[in-house]
This record gives sequence, structure tokens and C-alpha cells, in this order.
Amino acid sequence: MFYLSDAELDRLLLDDVAYGDLTTRALGCGDRFGQMTFCRREAGRISGVAVAVRLLRKLGLEVSAQVRDGVDVAAGTVLLTAMGTAERLHQGWKVVQNVLEWCGGVAQYMAQMVATARAINPLVQIACTRKCIPGTKSLAIAAVIDGGGILHRAGTAESVLLFANHRRFYAEPDNWEAMVQRLKQAAPEKKVIVEADAVEEALAALRAQADIVQLDKFTPDEFSLVLAQAHLLAPRCLLSAAGGITRSNVADYVRAGAQLLVTSAPYYAPPVNIKVQLHPLSL
Amino acid sequence: MFYLSDAELDRLLLDDVAYGDLTTRALGCGDRFGQMTFCRREAGRISGVAVAVRLLRKLGLEVSAQVRDGVDVAAGTVLLTAMGTAERLHQGWKVVQNVLEWCGGVAQYMAQMVATARAINPLVQIACTRKCIPGTKSLAIAAVIDGGGILHRAGTAESVLLFANHRRFYAEPDNWEAMVQRLKQAAPEKKVIVEADAVEEALAALRAQADIVQLDKFTPDEFSLVLAQAHLLAPRCLLSAAGGITRSNVADYVRAGAQLLVTSAPYYAPPVNIKVQLHPLSL
Amino acid sequence: MFYLSDAELDRLLLDDVAYGDLTTRALGCGDRFGQMTFCRREAGRISGVAVAVRLLRKLGLEVSAQVRDGVDVAAGTVLLTAMGTAERLHQGWKVVQNVLEWCGGVAQYMAQMVATARAINPLVQIACTRKCIPGTKSLAIAAVIDGGGILHRAGTAESVLLFANHRRFYAEPDNWEAMVQRLKQAAPEKKVIVEADAVEEALAALRAQADIVQLDKFTPDEFSLVLAQAHLLAPRCLLSAAGGITRSNVADYVRAGAQLLVTSAPYYAPPVNIKVQLHPLSL
Amino acid sequence: MFYLSDAELDRLLLDDVAYGDLTTRALGCGDRFGQMTFCRREAGRISGVAVAVRLLRKLGLEVSAQVRDGVDVAAGTVLLTAMGTAERLHQGWKVVQNVLEWCGGVAQYMAQMVATARAINPLVQIACTRKCIPGTKSLAIAAVIDGGGILHRAGTAESVLLFANHRRFYAEPDNWEAMVQRLKQAAPEKKVIVEADAVEEALAALRAQADIVQLDKFTPDEFSLVLAQAHLLAPRCLLSAAGGITRSNVADYVRAGAQLLVTSAPYYAPPVNIKVQLHPLSL
Amino acid sequence: MFYLSDAELDRLLLDDVAYGDLTTRALGCGDRFGQMTFCRREAGRISGVAVAVRLLRKLGLEVSAQVRDGVDVAAGTVLLTAMGTAERLHQGWKVVQNVLEWCGGVAQYMAQMVATARAINPLVQIACTRKCIPGTKSLAIAAVIDGGGILHRAGTAESVLLFANHRRFYAEPDNWEAMVQRLKQAAPEKKVIVEADAVEEALAALRAQADIVQLDKFTPDEFSLVLAQAHLLAPRCLLSAAGGITRSNVADYVRAGAQLLVTSAPYYAPPVNIKVQLHPLSL
Amino acid sequence: MFYLSDAELDRLLLDDVAYGDLTTRALGCGDRFGQMTFCRREAGRISGVAVAVRLLRKLGLEVSAQVRDGVDVAAGTVLLTAMGTAERLHQGWKVVQNVLEWCGGVAQYMAQMVATARAINPLVQIACTRKCIPGTKSLAIAAVIDGGGILHRAGTAESVLLFANHRRFYAEPDNWEAMVQRLKQAAPEKKVIVEADAVEEALAALRAQADIVQLDKFTPDEFSLVLAQAHLLAPRCLLSAAGGITRSNVADYVRAGAQLLVTSAPYYAPPVNIKVQLHPLSL
Repeated sequence: MFYLSDAELDRLLLDDVAYGDLTTRALGCGDRFGQMTFCRREAGRISGVAVAVRLLRKLGLEVSAQVRDGVDVAAGTVLLTAMGTAERLHQGWKVVQNVLEWCGGVAQYMAQMVATARAINPLVQIACTRKCIPGTKSLAIAAVIDGGGILHRAGTAESVLLFANHRRFYAEPDNWEAMVQRLKQAAPEKKVIVEADAVEEALAALRAQADIVQLDKFTPDEFSLVLAQAHLLAPRCLLSAAGGITRSNVADYVRAGAQLLVTSAPYYAPPVNIKVQLHPLSL
Repeated sequence: MFYLSDAELDRLLLDDVAYGDLTTRALGCGDRFGQMTFCRREAGRISGVAVAVRLLRKLGLEVSAQVRDGVDVAAGTVLLTAMGTAERLHQGWKVVQNVLEWCGGVAQYMAQMVATARAINPLVQIACTRKCIPGTKSLAIAAVIDGGGILHRAGTAESVLLFANHRRFYAEPDNWEAMVQRLKQAAPEKKVIVEADAVEEALAALRAQADIVQLDKFTPDEFSLVLAQAHLLAPRCLLSAAGGITRSNVADYVRAGAQLLVTSAPYYAPPVNIKVQLHPLSL
Repeated sequence: MFYLSDAELDRLLLDDVAYGDLTTRALGCGDRFGQMTFCRREAGRISGVAVAVRLLRKLGLEVSAQVRDGVDVAAGTVLLTAMGTAERLHQGWKVVQNVLEWCGGVAQYMAQMVATARAINPLVQIACTRKCIPGTKSLAIAAVIDGGGILHRAGTAESVLLFANHRRFYAEPDNWEAMVQRLKQAAPEKKVIVEADAVEEALAALRAQADIVQLDKFTPDEFSLVLAQAHLLAPRCLLSAAGGITRSNVADYVRAGAQLLVTSAPYYAPPVNIKVQLHPLSL
Repeated sequence: MFYLSDAELDRLLLDDVAYGDLTTRALGCGDRFGQMTFCRREAGRISGVAVAVRLLRKLGLEVSAQVRDGVDVAAGTVLLTAMGTAERLHQGWKVVQNVLEWCGGVAQYMAQMVATARAINPLVQIACTRKCIPGTKSLAIAAVIDGGGILHRAGTAESVLLFANHRRFYAEPDNWEAMVQRLKQAAPEKKVIVEADAVEEALAALRAQADIVQLDKFTPDEFSLVLAQAHLLAPRCLLSAAGGITRSNVADYVRAGAQLLVTSAPYYAPPVNIKVQLHPLSL
Repeated sequence: MFYLSDAELDRLLLDDVAYGDLTTRALGCGDRFGQMTFCRREAGRISGVAVAVRLLRKLGLEVSAQVRDGVDVAAGTVLLTAMGTAERLHQGWKVVQNVLEWCGGVAQYMAQMVATARAINPLVQIACTRKCIPGTKSLAIAAVIDGGGILHRAGTAESVLLFANHRRFYAEPDNWEAMVQRLKQAAPEKKVIVEADAVEEALAALRAQADIVQLDKFTPDEFSLVLAQAHLLAPRCLLSAAGGITRSNVADYVRAGAQLLVTSAPYYAPPVNIKVQLHPLSL
Repeated sequence: MFYLSDAELDRLLLDDVAYGDLTTRALGCGDRFGQMTFCRREAGRISGVAVAVRLLRKLGLEVSAQVRDGVDVAAGTVLLTAMGTAERLHQGWKVVQNVLEWCGGVAQYMAQMVATARAINPLVQIACTRKCIPGTKSLAIAAVIDGGGILHRAGTAESVLLFANHRRFYAEPDNWEAMVQRLKQAAPEKKVIVEADAVEEALAALRAQADIVQLDKFTPDEFSLVLAQAHLLAPRCLLSAAGGITRSNVADYVRAGAQLLVTSAPYYAPPVNIKVQLHPLSL
């Protein structure tokens, strides 16, 4: 897993347990020693474990992880065990459960998309957009990677992606060649990606020799049609399918010839089920 | 809207546009003046506008909001307009779109749950749990409120909620009366809420005179059954239905007599559709 | 102790020792190894030790704590010992001393209030308000809990407390029943607390069946008078005494029948005395 | 006033009003427009107004300040007025009241110490130590300055102050001349200040020609005695009185000849009384 | 200019003026109104003005900027004027001077490199590495862009750059084709850039059909030699020159055929000279 | 080394490796275990090692440091070794290299200035100004100290330094005696330092009995001339040389009699060369 800041982990913790768990305190059992286990109810792809370990350690708990992020586990697998006082265990419980459930959901969704797509074409890549749910950036990217996906772009400064909303500000908004040429010249270490919202736009982008043309909300048939043209107009140009690609329709696009799919769907996956149990231990 | 920190808004911005929009820069049109409009495609409940205004103003844009959070709008309503240079507009575009889409989705889902429930019993309240998606806390709570919901608890320190995971650490884990009594004594300004995972647990909690018994993953029939008992065992105790309550089944629980429902479902609502258009303006 | 963020601990450290201790550096003895002990001069309640341990460990020191927060110690008890280089010891000295002295002062004051009150009625609870000294929130709450107190409310979003400053904005500012009814309906998981500034207000709040009426700046006699009425008007309503309750007058209120006292006095307690000694050690 | 970060102001706000004021929301009167006034009940020194203005503006309120920090006002003076919706006013109320009360208390205490001292010797300076209450650094320093005091040292890196805890780590712990000489050489732009805990130590420090000898917990008589010696041993050395200097005994030390007093007492001053009133306004 | 967070600007301010300017305060002239002008002594490229404006406004000063970042000005040009009290002006003085001097130095250096290179080949691009001085990232990137440069990569997640330190961890460290193929497949939206430390490595990378081969510390002659081979081995591959490229030798590399140069030299440019004058104004 | 916050270290890391190293991930070798060594190519003064150790440990690597900051090493000395997975090693590589190179450069420059100066007069001190490169404050100060320098002033609140920009705001801008007297009275624990921009100003400052007169941009001859006058006019006043003092001309100023030199030159030193090698290890 890539590095997350202490501030980000602390925000996750304190959003939930600032000033502690009142119920534990009121019950007067905070000093009792115990154990907490996190168990994945259904089989599937794991994500969030590395973050969970750091969160629990920050609380002063002894932690051992039984699995690594990015692997598939059987139903009922224990992912993590933590030991310490009830006060500390109760501060970690829901924060960590929530991370494991949400990240697990995103990773699982992505893993299924990838599996579906690669059953048809093993070379397909599925990339997630920057449109993750506000505030979830680092965890979202981690979960996408654990699911076998890649990142389309993490932000606007790292790649060139020409939208209609850009073109309107250019002096000659219909001169695709000029725009693509200018972008290639201005950003020689980047691929120039152009979004097309209609077939004619796609053809214009191909004629302009964009490195990648991203076909937004095209049907699989429209995708095939443009792909056929691409072989003639711009044989080295890659076409990607974007906009509304989900677990349900990804196979159609791969069959239509898409090797690169761009999606935000995994970010909205339902969470997986993590069962958490806390037990006192006699020392 | 309640106050959000500058740090939180800056995180939303910089997660997406740190170091600016390369495409605008490479195209050389960043200084051109223009306008950006955010338009809600479908009718429904609005959320995120107050945050959007602050985000866009931080970028140095002139902003005017056409609607307030928490109201319902017709399809095609323009929510916000911003004016400034293309460089600034492009830094605000997707961040704000994303906030409006996600918050709008949560609020819309909640508004529909509330409408469904109150059509049956106008006094019902629907409360969202603390299990929001990691990193979304402030926006999630704002959207829930804009949707007409309330907050179950924002964190573990603000209310008393006795789980089985607490009970196991108590010296007499089956002595519900002792535990409820202790909690009432220790936290006299809080209602003592007890989660029950089965009918027998609910009855035990009622006999112990908890202020609220939260029935977790009960069927509507089980809820009715416990409710009937509650009138006898603890007439002043309130029952809440929690665990798996969604837009689809909320009516069943209200018909079963639930006046208070506790749910995490709105947090996972699909985003609404916000159309964003950027246009150059001649000054 | 509940969790504090690394940022909060770092702020405590860097507010005092950013860029190090010039005197140690100028004296050229920063590399010498030594020991530092923190000793409580007078007997009393301990607070701040858990925070001290984390602060000193952040500096890279070896730390061992001899006592736990929330207990009473004899005069002259050593609370903590730390070992490391003089440079590191000198960075930890005053920050930690200051935390132990201030938290100790608050906890000690609270412990004395609680002891005084419970000598009369063992079931009394003393709650601290949210009006802690600006910037001290987490430490203040920790010290209150270590002193045997509880928290009245940590913020405005977690509980319902109706002030005159609220009532004036309500359509019918003198309709106490309507307001209390509305608050109970709007926040079913919270107790509705109403502040009364005069006897008539208290009686109005009781008639409106508030869950708790908080009598602000009432004399003990006035408190008794309202309490007698409460038994008739609202037998399940709890009365709390607030405003000007201190270590000196708490007994009077408890004798007047108060079971719940709300105070800010401990936040302004004088600090206790912590003697700190640094010594070189031969390795 | 010196500059405070947005993060610090946001922390003050969110420590109190994160997620808003539930009572206002539950009462349904958040949108009503109104006014809030902050009024100083007793006469005295003002502090915290500049911070209050920034806090209230961050909430989106219209603010006008009637007085400046650092001046004395008559009892009943209105310090600040703010206008906006009830929702916003209620988010600002207690945070700002608290800042004005605490800063006012510190400034008032300091102003009285200064007035008492300067009535005897108009050239006296009273400096506050770095031992402010943890978490209050910026506000504490601002209040000290508003009270007419100065800052002894804001941190360990900015000045040279030799304690016994330093001396023990020096190769020759009793060679005061060597230590003072070394410190002067190592930090030529700083005055070398030496703390003395007993008369003999003070004389040793004087013989070593420290720039300032800080007499810690000396009685006024002891102070006089050392002062007489200082005229002989080190005529250019300044003596300061530190340790236990308060509003009650400051006059004794000034009469004993102290021109510089070092104290932490103002940090623990009781808060002043700020009355806050919120009223609806018809627009 | 792209957006910088309030926290970053506040850090710049508070690193220098936390707790204010003691000299102004001690002199007792902080309330006097005045003006501050920032004047560029020598002709050249401007950078840092947009940041300066935000910094000065945060201090509550009235600011007007006379020039925009990224343009060239004549010697003696006034860049900015600010008005306000002496206390505020003195808090802004050196922070802003320092930003303008450092950013100006970087931008000026870059502008000269670009001018030198484009006098030979107008299509050359000069990209700055991620090896900026620790802590300067945002300002460094802004200054590079203002100087007419581009960014090589802002971080390790945004582009593919294969170093020898990567190759050693690959199962077949000498199989360049396998590695390049794998990278292209794994990151289809990125150009695959390969660093070569010697001619043989460059040829291997060309044969592997990398998108870009980055020749590290090659002489201009070596660069030419590889370029000649590139036309044969990989006609669509772009060669970049990196490692030790400075203002002094950039022309040699451009003459050797380099169209893309990668450098860290501008980050270490000497600062330009900004003269700052503060004057009282009569109101 | 003095303490740096986790937030500062995390900023250094995440400025470079947020979301990880794409190349390692794309190559699929992130889990392979290995070692990373940091080796100083040329002989000289070390700085940044303590920071490097903390950075690498934050990434979860095993680290051992072979040298301490502030010492001189031979060419080819290994400074640090780290062990862990390739994924973690690649996240630490350049961040740490960059810290070691930049801090090393500053320390090395400072060490040479000090050596040059002290070869002439062993009692000379060289102090660095607060004009470090924006964003580098903590590392810059650490490197200066590791180089054998001292800190002139870390900020405006910690010392008194009268500039012409201050004098203009004083009621009698030419009355040097009044100003110096006022500053001494207002800040009795600080030395009063006065900057002089011309010989006449220096003489005026001497006559006013400033503690230190800082001669800005004086030639060595002018310095000598003022020094001769100082012996007559103000024998206890220290003269410092500031403005344009570099490694090249420091000897001239020391020979001219300067015992205290104030400079910003080390901040702009070229980085030293740190060779980093990553190798797989068989476990």
C-alpha cells in the first residue's frame, strides 16, 4: 500500500471517536483486556487491511493481520485480530470496520469488473476516474488498485484530457488538429487524450491524431463503429470507453473491442460485510 | 449549513486540482474570461450548494447561487453560476460537480425515504448512523439534514448505545438491569439506548427500562411483536428499527409501528446528475 | 485515555520547542545521556500522564509511567521517568510539566468537588460545560474525566439545550409547550434540556415536560423551591444546577437536592505542582 | 493583533460547533435573521476582539467592532455586534463569548499587575513566561500584550536561559564563569539569562557576569539583598524576579527594586463576564 | 496561478511572523497607517505575485498588483503596493519579499534557459524534475511555469519512469523488451519513459520501443550519437536529455538535437532582488 | 536534532509519493524485499540524517544510520541503509535523497564559511538570517546548525531589530537615541540590534548605544572604519556584518574585524551528491 499521512488516519479516527466511547466509560469496563476480530462474511477481494493495521496501532493496540490487501479470501476469513483494553478496542471497532467494508466493496466491484472483462480479453485495463466520492481519494485509489484496476488520472495536473469545456475557450474551437498539435507540443511527456461526446467528434479527434480518444457514453455499437474507423484514420491511436461503464455492461464494451475502460462505478459499490467481535481475555 | 473548515474545503480542491489544470495551460487559454453553470438534470432535493459556493469563491470566482440546500427543484434547474478566467473555472468544475452530485444523491435518497415514511405516519424520524463512508463525515451529515433526516449519533462520545460488544466486558454480561441502571446513573443527560439483536434481547432491554431499544435487523413482524410487549413492559421506552432499513422497506417498518428508523442506506445512494457547462464570455 | 491526534501533540511540542533548546545547544551538552523525572509535590488526583507518555516518546525518549491517570497519589510520587540525550530531555521538560500541572489542577479540583458532593449524596454527578478555555478542549475533557466528572456536552450538535437566545427566534417565544414538544419530536434520541434563568421560567419548562430543566444561577433555596414544584408538575423531569457552581458552594446545592450539577469551574483551577529533575547518567 | 492561522480559528469554531447547533435546527428557526451583541459587564481591559471579528466573519456574519483590543472600557460597553441568520449566530455565540471572556480575564489581570507596579516605578516591565495553559499559546500571548505585559520568551529556541537542569549536564557544573562565557560566545545576539534558585547561586551568576539573573522564588527581602550585591559585582547585570509573582505581591517586589518581573499568573486569571444577546430582526 | 491552500500560505506567514513583529510593537508605532511597495530592481521574469497578493490580503492589507506572473518587466518596476497599519505591513514585508525573490529567481533562470534553447529550436521544451528543494513544491512548480518551463512529473504516481533501481527488482533485469511491454500494458494512458545511464542502455531502451528514453548525464556528443540510432531503431521514440543540464550548457544539447530537456537547475537559481519600502501615509 | 512534526515529514513524503510509485506497481515487483543505501559521493559535512531516519521509518522500513548529523565524512561514506519491500523503498528513495542533498549542501557551505572565518579568528560566529527559501524553515535551520552556524533570528517576534522601514513610522524618525532607549525599555530581555545602511547611520546607532549595530552591505573597509569609531563611541556595542556575505568574501570581513557575520548565502548553496542504490535481497 502506498503511504497515507498520520493526519488522514487521525481524521478517520477522530471523526468517529473523538473524546472516546462514552458507553464503555459509563459502563466502567474500559480497563478490561480483550480481543477484537474482523471477519469477512462473504468470499471476495480484500482491501483496507494495511490502513486498518495502522489505525489500530495508533490506538495502542497489538495487531496482527492474517491477509494482505488485493487477494481473494473465502467466506468467513478472519482478516485482522487486535488486542488491548476495552477502551481502546471500542475506539477502533467501527472506524476499522467501516474502512474494511467500504474499501472491500470498491475492490470487490472492481475485481468483478476486471474478471468479467479479462475473461473475454485478458489484456483489458479498467481505469477509475478522478470522480471519487468527495473526501475518499486515498482510500478510493487504494481500493481500486487492490481490485486490480488502475487509475485514469489522480488530478488535473498530471495528464492532458481535452474536454468540450476546454475547446470552447480555444481561439478556433473546431480546429481539432491545431488543438491536438498544440497539446502534444506543450506536453511532450504526456499522452494527449481527447474526449468525444459523439461519433463525429471521435472522428475529428482521430483525424487530429490524438494519442487516445475517450468515447464518452457511446453504445457498444458506436464504439465498434469508431474502432473500425480508427484502424484507418489513426492506427496508433487507442480508444477508450468511458461514461456509464458498469459491472453489468463492461462485457459488451470489451466484446465491442474496448481494451481500455474508464469508469467511476466502483466508487459507488455497496460495502461488503465485516463481522466484528470483541471479547474479554483473561491475562 | 453548518461551518466547514478551510482545511476541509482545501482538501477537496487540492485532491483534484493541485498544480492546476494542465490541459487548460497547455492549450494556452487560461486567461480567457468565461462562465460556468451547474444544472440539475432531474428533479429532486438539493444539497451541496453552500459548500460549492465557498469552494468556488476560494478559487477567486464570482459566484451566484440560484437555490438553497434542502429544497426540491424541477428538472433542468440551474443551481449555481460562476464567472472568472478559464484557468479558475477549470479548477472548480469537477470538484464542485462531484460535491453537488454526491450530496444531492444522499439528500435525494433521504428525502424519498422520509416522504415514503411520513405518508404513512407524519411523525416518523429517520436517523443516519455514524457509518458514513470514510472521509465523508461533514458532507454526509449535511446531505442527510438537507434530505430531511436527522443524525443518530455523530460519534461515540456523544451518546450512550449499549452493544453486545460492550456487554461482554461487563462483570455480569447478562444482567441488563444492572447495566442500564449504571448507564443511566453515569450519563444522566443522555438517553440510554440499547441494541438488541434478537427478540429475547429486546425484551430484556425493555424489562431493564432502557430509554430506547434499537432493534437491529428485526423483520417488520418481529418489530410489531416487540412493540406490543413494550407497551406492557416499558411504556415510556421508544423502539427504533435499525439494520438494513432502505428506501424499499422503510414503509413496512413504519406500518409495523416504527416511529424512529436508523439507517446507513442514504450514504450509498447513487449520485444525481449535474450538467456543467463552461463558456467564454466577451467582457 | 481517549485518542488524541498526532497533530495535537505536535502542536503542544512545537508551541514550546520549535527549533530546539538554544541553551542546551549553546552549552554544547546536547549529546550527553540522562534521565528526567516528573514528581507530584502534593498529594492528589493525577491527569495528563497518558498524554505525557506519548509526547516524550515522540521526542525519541525511553519512557516509563509509574501511575495511571485518574488515581490519587501521595505527595512526592514520581509519575514518570524518561531517558535519553540532554537535547531530547530538554525539549520534553516544560511541555510535559505544563500538561501534568494543568491537567492535574483541573482533575484535582473536579475530584474535590465530586468528593464533597458525594459525601452528601453518593449518586450526584458533576458535569463540565463546553466553556473550557479556548484551545484546551481535549485535555480539558480528559482531565474532567480523570477527576471523576462527566461531560455536559462537547458541542452544540450532540444535544438539545434550549436557551433564551433560542426562544426569541421561535415564532411563539413564550409557548414553552410548543417548543419542548417540537424539540422532542425533532430529536427523539436526545433528552430535551431547557435552561431557566428565573423561577417562573423553570416552572414553565416543567409544565412543558422538558426532560431536564437546567436552573442557571439559582440560589440553593431557589433550587429547593423549584424541586418541590417539580415533584408535582413533572415527576420524571430532572433538575440540574448550573451557573456559578464551584468547589465552595457545591455542598449547598447537593443539600438543596441537586443530583446533577453543571459547572465550568474546574477549567479555571490553579495548576498543581510538578517538580522536574534532569540528571546526567553514565551509560 | 498579530496574525493567527485559519486553522487555529477553525479549530476554535469546530471544537464547539462542528455539525451545527442541533437546538436551532430542531426548533426550525435557523433561517430567521437576527443580531447578536457582546457586552462587557464590568469595566476593564479588552482583549480578543480582533479574533472575535475574524471568527464571526468566517461564519458569514456581518460584524462591527465597537472597541479595539488593549483599551479599557466602562462597564456595560458593547464590544461587538454581528448580524445574520439564527443558524450562523448560534454557531458563533459561545466560541466568541469564550474567547472574549478568557482573553479579557488574562488581559485584565495583567493590566492590574502593570498598573500596580508602575504606580511605584513607571519603568517596570512584567513579562509572561512560556508556561501558558497547553493549547492557548497564541491567544495567551495576545492577551498578555493587550494587558500591557511583554513576553519573557515564546519558546526555547529564541533566548538563552540557563537552568540548574542545564548545568548538571555541563562538564563542570559549578563553573559558572565558564558556562556564562560559553553561552555569550555561542549566542552573541542574545542576552544570557541565568536562573538562580538561592542567594549563593545568584551571586555566582553575578560574578560570572550574566546579562540577566532571574531570581526564582526569592522573597522581596532576598531580592533586595542580591540587588545590593549586584551593584558591586556586576553593575550592568539586570535582575529579574520570577516564580510566584502575582497581582497580590507584585508591589512588594517592585518596592524591593525589581524592574523586570517574570510571571505565569495572568494565564490563570478568572474570566471576565461577557453578556451575549441574540434577537431576531425584521428585515 | 493554480490554487494554494490557506494552510500553505499560513505556514509561510507564521514561519516568519508568529506572534508579530516585536520591533514595531516595542517602538509603539504599530497603529500608524502606511504603504509598502515591492519593486523589482533588475529587469526580468516575474513570479510569486499572485501568492503575494493572497498573503498580504490574509494580513488584512489593501493590495494592488501592478503586474501579472509570467511576464517580463523592466528594471525598477513596482510589482505590488499594499496599504494598512505598520503592524500589518511589517508582518507582510519579508515573507512576501522572500517569495518574490525566490520565485523570481527560479522563473528568471528558467526563462533564460528557454530563451537560449528556443533561439536555436523554437519547439524545445524544458521540463523540471520532481527534485525541487524540500518544502518548496507548490512555489517551485508555479515559478517553473511562470518561467516558461513545464513539469517533468510532480510525483511518482502520475507517470511511468523506469530507473535502474526499478530494473534490479524485476525477475529478468536485462530483459528491456519485457519490462517496456509490461509497463505499456499496465499503464496504457501513460507514456513509458526509460532512463538510460549509458549508451548501451539507451540502445536497449530504444530496441524495446520505449515511448521516451531519458539520457542521464550524457554529453551532447553522446546524445547525438544515440539520436542517430534512434531514427533507425525506434523512429517514434522521443529522446530527452537529463542530468546536469543548466543555463550554461543547454544550447549544446539543443544543438545536439534534444527537443526535450529535463533539469533541476532552476530550483537552485539565485534569488532576484526585490526592494521593499515602507512609508507612513497621512490619512 | 530538534523535533519536527509528523505533518511536516508527511508533507515531504506526500509531495513526492502520494498514491505510490506507479512504475514499481506497473512492473509488478513491489513485494520483493530489498535494501537501499545512501552514500555521500564527496567528503564533507553531513545534515539531514535524523530527518531521513524518521521519513524512512514512517514508510515502515528498517533503517540504520551510520553517521550523525553535523560531522564530516570521507568521500564514499554510506550514511544510511534501509530494508523493506521494493514498494516502500521506492517511496523513500528520492524524498530522502533530496533531503540529504539539500541539507548537506547548506551544511557544507556553512561549514566552509565557518572554517574559513575561524582560521583567522577562532571566536567568530556566523549567523543565518530568517530569509531562508520559502517552505524550508525547519530543514534550513537544522542544516545551518549542522554546518556550525547559528541562527540570527527565527522570526520577528523573538528579537529586536530596527530597520529603516521601522524608523520611518516613529514620530521622530531621526532621533536614534529615543528609539534605542524606547526599545531597551520595552524589551529588557533582548539585545537591541539596529541595522545601518550607511556609515552615518552606523555612527548614529553607536551614539545611541545600541547593543548591536548590523552593518548592511558595508565593504570590509567601511566595516573597519566603523569598528574603529565603535571603540570610542560605544565600547560595549557589538558590530555585525550583514548583506552579501558569502563563502568568498567572509575572510575579508573577518580580517576587517568582524566577529559576527549575518548571512543568507548558505540557503542557496548547491546540493551535495548522494548516490542511492536499491538492490533486491534474498530473505
